[in-house]
Amino acid sequence: MSDAPQLLIVAAESAPWTDAVMSLAAPHRRTVVVAPRDEIETSAVEVVVGAPPDLAAIIPRCPQLRWVQSTWAGIDAIAHFASETLQITPLKGVFGPAMTEYVVGWLLAIERNVISRASHTQWTPSLEPRITDKRMGIMGTGDIGTAIALAAKSFGVEVFGLNSDGRAVEGFTACYPSTDRLAFAERLDYLVSVLPQTAQTDNLIDHEVLMRLNPGAIVINAGRGNAVVEADLIASLNAGHVRAAVLDVFREEPLPGDDPLWSTPGAYVTSHTAGPTPDEAVAEVFERNLKRYIAGEPLTDGVQPGRGY
Amino acid sequence: MSDAPQLLIVAAESAPWTDAVMSLAAPHRRTVVVAPRDEIETSAVEVVVGAPPDLAAIIPRCPQLRWVQSTWAGIDAIAHFASETLQITPLKGVFGPAMTEYVVGWLLAIERNVISRASHTQWTPSLEPRITDKRMGIMGTGDIGTAIALAAKSFGVEVFGLNSDGRAVEGFTACYPSTDRLAFAERLDYLVSVLPQTAQTDNLIDHEVLMRLNPGAIVINAGRGNAVVEADLIASLNAGHVRAAVLDVFREEPLPGDDPLWSTPGAYVTSHTAGPTPDEAVAEVFERNLKRYIAGEPLTDGVQPGRGY
Repeated sequence: MSDAPQLLIVAAESAPWTDAVMSLAAPHRRTVVVAPRDEIETSAVEVVVGAPPDLAAIIPRCPQLRWVQSTWAGIDAIAHFASETLQITPLKGVFGPAMTEYVVGWLLAIERNVISRASHTQWTPSLEPRITDKRMGIMGTGDIGTAIALAAKSFGVEVFGLNSDGRAVEGFTACYPSTDRLAFAERLDYLVSVLPQTAQTDNLIDHEVLMRLNPGAIVINAGRGNAVVEADLIASLNAGHVRAAVLDVFREEPLPGDDPLWSTPGAYVTSHTAGPTPDEAVAEVFERNLKRYIAGEPLTDGVQPGRGY
Repeated sequence: MSDAPQLLIVAAESAPWTDAVMSLAAPHRRTVVVAPRDEIETSAVEVVVGAPPDLAAIIPRCPQLRWVQSTWAGIDAIAHFASETLQITPLKGVFGPAMTEYVVGWLLAIERNVISRASHTQWTPSLEPRITDKRMGIMGTGDIGTAIALAAKSFGVEVFGLNSDGRAVEGFTACYPSTDRLAFAERLDYLVSVLPQTAQTDNLIDHEVLMRLNPGAIVINAGRGNAVVEADLIASLNAGHVRAAVLDVFREEPLPGDDPLWSTPGAYVTSHTAGPTPDEAVAEVFERNLKRYIAGEPLTDGVQPGRGY
C-alpha cells in the first residue's frame, strides 16, 4: 500500500513531455507512467496528468484525487469533475505570453536599434524611433492574438484585428473580417500574423496587402507559413516598402538552406521558436502548477467547479 | 488684428525645442517666438508654450487662451490657472514609456536571442529562455521606475524596488531602502537602475551587489553613470557571473573610445539614447497634444481644475 502511486502520467506512448513531467514530479510524489487502459492501483493517486479523453475513465477511480493536469487546452471531456477538492487545469497560459515576448522583443529590437547597437564600437547619440503611437494589425484574435494586442496597447500602440467575421474583441480598437483584409492593412506600421493553417488563411499576406502598409512597415509572422506569399514579401523588402520581416514559420520547415529569405536584407529568420512546442508547454505548465500544488496555492487557470471551463 | 499671434512660444533664447515646436505649430496657427518679457499683442492668443515661471505673467493677459503646454514636468507656478476652458499640460508621459521600451526591448532581445538570431544563416530550433517568472529589481521607484515595473509585471516578471526609505510603491512586490541594497539584490535575475545622480546613488552597483544576483543575471543602467562601479561590473562580466550589461549612461559621456566597456564580452553600450533629450521630449509632447487640440479631444495629462496637479 505504501508503494501505491501518488502521481499518474497517462500516455499511450512515451514522449518528451512524459519524461520531463516524470523528472519534475518524481522528487515530490511516487510517480508512474501508465497507458490509458493499464490496470493500476489508484487508491493513493493525488495527481493525474494526461489527455482528457484518456482521463475521463480514470478520474472516478481515484478517491484521493486533488489535481488533474490536462495536456490539452480543451478540457470539455473532464471539466465536470472539477469540485472544491479537485482542481482541473488546462494547457493554457504559455503560448500567448511566449509569442508576446517574441513579437514585442523583435519589434523593439528593430525600432530601438538594439540589433545594430549591439555591435557598435563608438558613441552614436541619434534619436531612435519609438513604438508608442504606432498602428499594429494582428491577424488572428484568439488567446495568442489578444495577449499580443494587450501588451502592444500597454506600450501605446493602437491595435486592429483581423478574424473570420470581424467580431469585436477586447484589446482591439476595431476588428475586420478576413474578406476586408485590404481595409485592415491600410496604413499599418506593424503587421503581425498568428493565424493557424487553414484554407481560409492561405496567402493573406500578399502584394496587395503589403502595398497598403505604411512605408517602412515591419511584418512579423509567428502563425503558419501558408499565410505569406514569400515572393511578394521579398519583393517588398527589396523595394524598401517593407523595412523588416521577422519570420518564424514557413511552408517548408526547416527553411531550406538555399531559400532566398536567408539572404534578403531586412528579413530575419527564426526557427519556429516564437512559442514552445506542445511538449515544452506541457512541462512548463506542469512545473508551474506543481510548485503551487506543493505550496498549497491555487493552481493557474483552474476550471471553476460547475462552470465547465 | 487678423495678424495677431494665436500661438506663443515663450523662450529666453532659441533652442532646438523652439524650432521644432514652431514648425509643428505654424501650419495650424499664426505662431511667434517671444522672449519672456517681450511686449506682445495677446488678444488672439489661444495657445502658449513655455516654462512655468515665464508663463505666470502672460497667462492672465490672454483672454482667448485655451491651452498652455509647459516645457517642465513641474507646473506648480501655473496649475491654479487651469479651468473648464483652459487646459494646462505638463511635460509628462514621455520618459517613462521611452525608457520602458529600452529596458524591455534589450531584455527580450538578450533572453530571446534576437541579437544572435538576427544574423543566423541556418535553422536553429533550440529552446529559448523566457522573461516570465524571472525576478527584476529596479533602483528608483518614481515615474520611470514605476512605468518599467508595470510593463515587466505584465510579462509575468516579479518586480522589487529600491528607494530612499523603502516605502511601498504600486507595481512593486516589495521595496527596500537603499541601506538594504544587498538584501534587495539577493537572487535577482535582472537589475535595472533609473536612479538620478546624487551623493546617495554613488557606487550602489558594486561587487557586493553584483555577487548577490543570480548567476547569469542581466544588469541595465539607464539612470546615471555614477551608480555603477565600472571595474566591478567588468570583472563580473569577465567571470561570467553577470551575463550581460546594457549601459546607456557613464561617468564620462561620450564614453571614451578606449574605455574597456567597448570590448568587454556581454557589455552593450548605448549612447544615452534610452530616453529622449528634454528638447525632443518637448517637441514630442507638444506634437501629441497639438493633434488632440486641433481635433477637439482632451489633452494628455491635463491638470484637473482646482487640483493643482
